[in-house]
Amino acid sequence: MAKEMKDNQFVKEIADMTADFPQWYTDVVLKTQLVDYGPVKGTMVIRPYGYEIWEHIQDELDRRFKATGHKNAYFPMLIPYSYLVKEADHVEGFAPEVALVTHIGDTPLEEKLVVRPTSETIICSMYSKWVQSYRDLPLLINQWANVVRWEKTTRPFLRTSEFLWQEGHTLHRTEEEAREETAKMLEVYREFMQNVLAIDVLTGVKTEKEKFAGAVNTYSMEAMMLDGKSLQAGTSHYLGQNFSSAFEIKYLDKDGQLKNPYQTSWGVSTRLIGALIMAHGDQRGLKLPPRVAPVQVVVVPIAFHKEGVLDKAQELAAALKSAGVRVELDDRDQSPGWKFNEWEMKGVPVRIEIGPRDIENGQFVAVRRDTHEKRVIEISSLCEAIPALLDEIHENMFRQSHEFLHSRIDVCRNMDDMKESLDNGHFVKTMWCGCRECEDKIKAELSATSRVMPFDQTPVGETCVCCGKPADKVIYFAKSY
Amino acid sequence: MAKEMKDNQFVKEIADMTADFPQWYTDVVLKTQLVDYGPVKGTMVIRPYGYEIWEHIQDELDRRFKATGHKNAYFPMLIPYSYLVKEADHVEGFAPEVALVTHIGDTPLEEKLVVRPTSETIICSMYSKWVQSYRDLPLLINQWANVVRWEKTTRPFLRTSEFLWQEGHTLHRTEEEAREETAKMLEVYREFMQNVLAIDVLTGVKTEKEKFAGAVNTYSMEAMMLDGKSLQAGTSHYLGQNFSSAFEIKYLDKDGQLKNPYQTSWGVSTRLIGALIMAHGDQRGLKLPPRVAPVQVVVVPIAFHKEGVLDKAQELAAALKSAGVRVELDDRDQSPGWKFNEWEMKGVPVRIEIGPRDIENGQFVAVRRDTHEKRVIEISSLCEAIPALLDEIHENMFRQSHEFLHSRIDVCRNMDDMKESLDNGHFVKTMWCGCRECEDKIKAELSATSRVMPFDQTPVGETCVCCGKPADKVIYFAKSY
Repeated sequence: MAKEMKDNQFVKEIADMTADFPQWYTDVVLKTQLVDYGPVKGTMVIRPYGYEIWEHIQDELDRRFKATGHKNAYFPMLIPYSYLVKEADHVEGFAPEVALVTHIGDTPLEEKLVVRPTSETIICSMYSKWVQSYRDLPLLINQWANVVRWEKTTRPFLRTSEFLWQEGHTLHRTEEEAREETAKMLEVYREFMQNVLAIDVLTGVKTEKEKFAGAVNTYSMEAMMLDGKSLQAGTSHYLGQNFSSAFEIKYLDKDGQLKNPYQTSWGVSTRLIGALIMAHGDQRGLKLPPRVAPVQVVVVPIAFHKEGVLDKAQELAAALKSAGVRVELDDRDQSPGWKFNEWEMKGVPVRIEIGPRDIENGQFVAVRRDTHEKRVIEISSLCEAIPALLDEIHENMFRQSHEFLHSRIDVCRNMDDMKESLDNGHFVKTMWCGCRECEDKIKAELSATSRVMPFDQTPVGETCVCCGKPADKVIYFAKSY
Repeated sequence: MAKEMKDNQFVKEIADMTADFPQWYTDVVLKTQLVDYGPVKGTMVIRPYGYEIWEHIQDELDRRFKATGHKNAYFPMLIPYSYLVKEADHVEGFAPEVALVTHIGDTPLEEKLVVRPTSETIICSMYSKWVQSYRDLPLLINQWANVVRWEKTTRPFLRTSEFLWQEGHTLHRTEEEAREETAKMLEVYREFMQNVLAIDVLTGVKTEKEKFAGAVNTYSMEAMMLDGKSLQAGTSHYLGQNFSSAFEIKYLDKDGQLKNPYQTSWGVSTRLIGALIMAHGDQRGLKLPPRVAPVQVVVVPIAFHKEGVLDKAQELAAALKSAGVRVELDDRDQSPGWKFNEWEMKGVPVRIEIGPRDIENGQFVAVRRDTHEKRVIEISSLCEAIPALLDEIHENMFRQSHEFLHSRIDVCRNMDDMKESLDNGHFVKTMWCGCRECEDKIKAELSATSRVMPFDQTPVGETCVCCGKPADKVIYFAKSY
C-alpha cells in the first residue's frame, strides 16, 4: 500500500471523496480532462474524453429510439417569446431562466426571441401545421440539441447554463396510447441505465410540486450517487392536451370530429455523464462503465525498450481493435507505474500489462479497474477473453450499483427517523398524505425533496411521515442534486 | 408519356425546373417534407426525411475525421462579445449578422453574449489554457454544432439564420504542417463529395475578397447546380497565427522559445443537402445519391391483395434489411402508380416491383430512379444484385455530375464572351490580374463572383479578362448561391 501511494502522483491531486465529495467530483472531472469551465458563467466545455462518452451514450440511445419507431428531426433554437407564454404553467416555470436574443448586431428585433430551454412550444407550433388527420398519428419525433437554462448554482455536467440533450415529442390519438408511450420511454431509459451505464435506478411518478412545467404527470428515474444523494437522471412526461390545445393542434378523427391529440415528451442530457462519475468513481478517480468508456482497454508494455515487447503490445492492440474493442497502446516514455496511475484515474476498465517474461510464456496480465483483480490470460485467447471480461466488469458494476442503492433505502415513519436516515446518506421510503405543505416542510426542515412515487404502491405504513394524518401514497425522499 | 403525366399527380405540383428553378427547389424541399419554414424569419425545421440525410452525411464525415486523427468536443454556444472583437477582420465580417443575448428573463446581462456564428474565438480562448508545450501539438478537434448568422435573404438549407454544421479547429507547430492540414481536409471533403454525394467539385483558393474573415487563405470546393450556378459546398481555412496571437496561445517549443502555433479551421453544413438536391434533381423531384438516401429501396407489391404477394414483398424487404440496405415496404392501400410517383418525387434510388407473375417466375423488377431503366432480377440473387445496383447508380450519378460540370466550363478572354457564357449557365475559366477593382466590376456588371483559383495554374491566356492588363492568375467566375 505504501509503495502504491508513493507511485501514485495523481491520487494526491484528487480530494478524498469521503471527506469532501463535491471537491472530489470537481477534481476528477477537471483532471481527467472530461470538461473545463467555459468563459461565460455556468457554461462548460466538453473536452474530447468527455465528449466521446456522450457519443457512446447517443449511439446507444439513438438505436433504442429508432427501434421504438422514432425519427430524428431538428427544430430552430430561437423561439418567439409569444410562444413561451401560450401554456401558462410552462411560462411560469421557464420565464425567469431563459436567455433572450434582443438584437441582431446593432439592430433591435421586433419580437425578442427565447433561446430554447426545451422545445415543446416551437415543436407544437409545427405539429399544428403537420397534423390534420388521425392518419398522421402517432407522430414520433426526437431531437438531439443544445438547450439553455440560466441556473444560479452550476456544476459541470450536473447543472450548466447550456447543456446537450435529446428531447422526444410525440402525439397520439388517445390518452391511453400517450400514457403507454410515456411509460415505454421511461422503460427505455431504465434499461439503458442498467445495461449501458451500469446504474440501478428507482422509477415512478413525480409529485405535483416536482413535475415539469406544463405536464399532467412527470415520470422520473432517480439514481443514488456515492454520497447518498439522488440524481434525477431522466424524465418522461405525459402532457395530456395541455400543449395541443394551447397550440391548436387538431386532427380529424375517424368519427369526423376535430380533436386535440394527446402528447408526451421525454429527455436525458449530458447530466448522465455526471451520474456515471458519481455512481461509479472511487478514491483513485473515474471508474467508467465499459460500454461507454472511450478507452475500454489500455495496453501498457513493460520494459518496452527490450526487443519484441513493443511489437507484441502493438499486435495485441491491433487484434483487440479488429475485435471491436476500443483500445489504446500507451507507448509513451514514462514508467509503467506512472501510466497505471494515469489510466486508473481516467477510469479505463481493463489494463493489459505485457513484458518480456509474459511474451516468453505466451500470456499477458489483465487488471480490472473495478476490483483491481489481476488475471493471467493466454495471448491466444485474447479476443474472446477481453470482451468477456468487459461484460463481467459491466455486470459487477451494475450489481454494486444495485446493492448500494437497495442497502441504503430506509423505511421511515416519522421525521426523526427520516432525519437520521438522510444524514446517513440514505434514501427514505415512507408514506405521504399528498399535501404540498408536508412536502414543503420536509424540504425546509430536512433539506430533502420528494423523488418519486414508485409504481409499486404497497403501503409501508398508514400515516404521513410529516403530519401524521392518514396517508395512502408510498414515496421516496432524498437529498438531491 | 401522356399516361405517365396523367398518373403523376405529384409532378404537376412541382414547378418546371427549366422555367423556374428557384420555385422548383422550393416545391421539392417542401413537398418531399425535407424541410419546413420555422416561425422566426429565415429559420428552418429539418423534418425527419431531411434530417436522416444529414445523419448519413454526419456518419460518413465523422468517420473520415476520426480516421485522420481528429476528436470531437463541444464548446459553449454563447460567447462574450469582447471575444468577437479580438481579431479585427473577424469582427468586421461577423458583427452585423450576430444574434445577441442581452437578458436572462427580465435581468440584463453585464456583458452581452454572441450566439456563435462560428467558434474560432471561444475555441482559441480554451486552447490558450490547454496548450503549453510542443508536446500538446498538434491539437486536432472537431465540433458538430448549430450556428446562427442573420441573413437578409434566406432559403432552406442554402442560407438560413440558424444552420447545423461541423467545424474543425486545429493547432500546429509549423506553418508547413498547418498548411498540410488545410489541404488534407479540403481533400477529405472533395473525396466525400465524390464518393458519398456523387457530386464533382472544383477546388482551389479564394481571392482576398471572398476569403473567411480572419483567415490567411481560404480554400473552397465549388459545385455546379443544375441551373449553372455555383454553390460553395465547403471551406478549409489556413488561419496562420492571426487568432493564436490575438488570443495569446503560446507553447514552449523544443528550442526553449515561446511561440504562437499555426492554425486551421474547416467546415461543411446542412447546405450540403441543398447541394445534393440541386445537383441531382429532375422534373419529377428529388434524385437522392444512394449512400445518403434515407430509403435506398422501396418495395411496392403489385396486386397485393392477391395471396402471397404481400408475404413475398415482406420477405424481400426483410432480406434486404439484413443485408444492410435501407429499405421500406409500401403496403399502403393506394394504387401502384400513385406509389411510384410518390417515391420518385422523394428520390428513392431503386424501386422494386413484385406481383403474382413475378413470384411465379422467381423474379422481381428493379427500376432505377436515375435512368428509369427496368431490370428483371432473380429473387435468388436479390442481396447481391441490389447493393451492386446502388453502387452502379452512385457511379452513374457521379459521372453525370462530372460531365455536367466539365462540359459547362468556358474559357473566356473578354467581358462579352464572359457575359454570354454566364448567361448560358456556364462557369468561366479565365485570367485575372489579381486586383480587387476587376473583381468588383465583374460582380457589378455580370452578377458573377470569383469562385476559386485552381491548384493547376496552367495559363489560359495572358491578359486580365476585365482590365486587359497582364495577368498571371487562373480563376473561375460564376453566378452563385
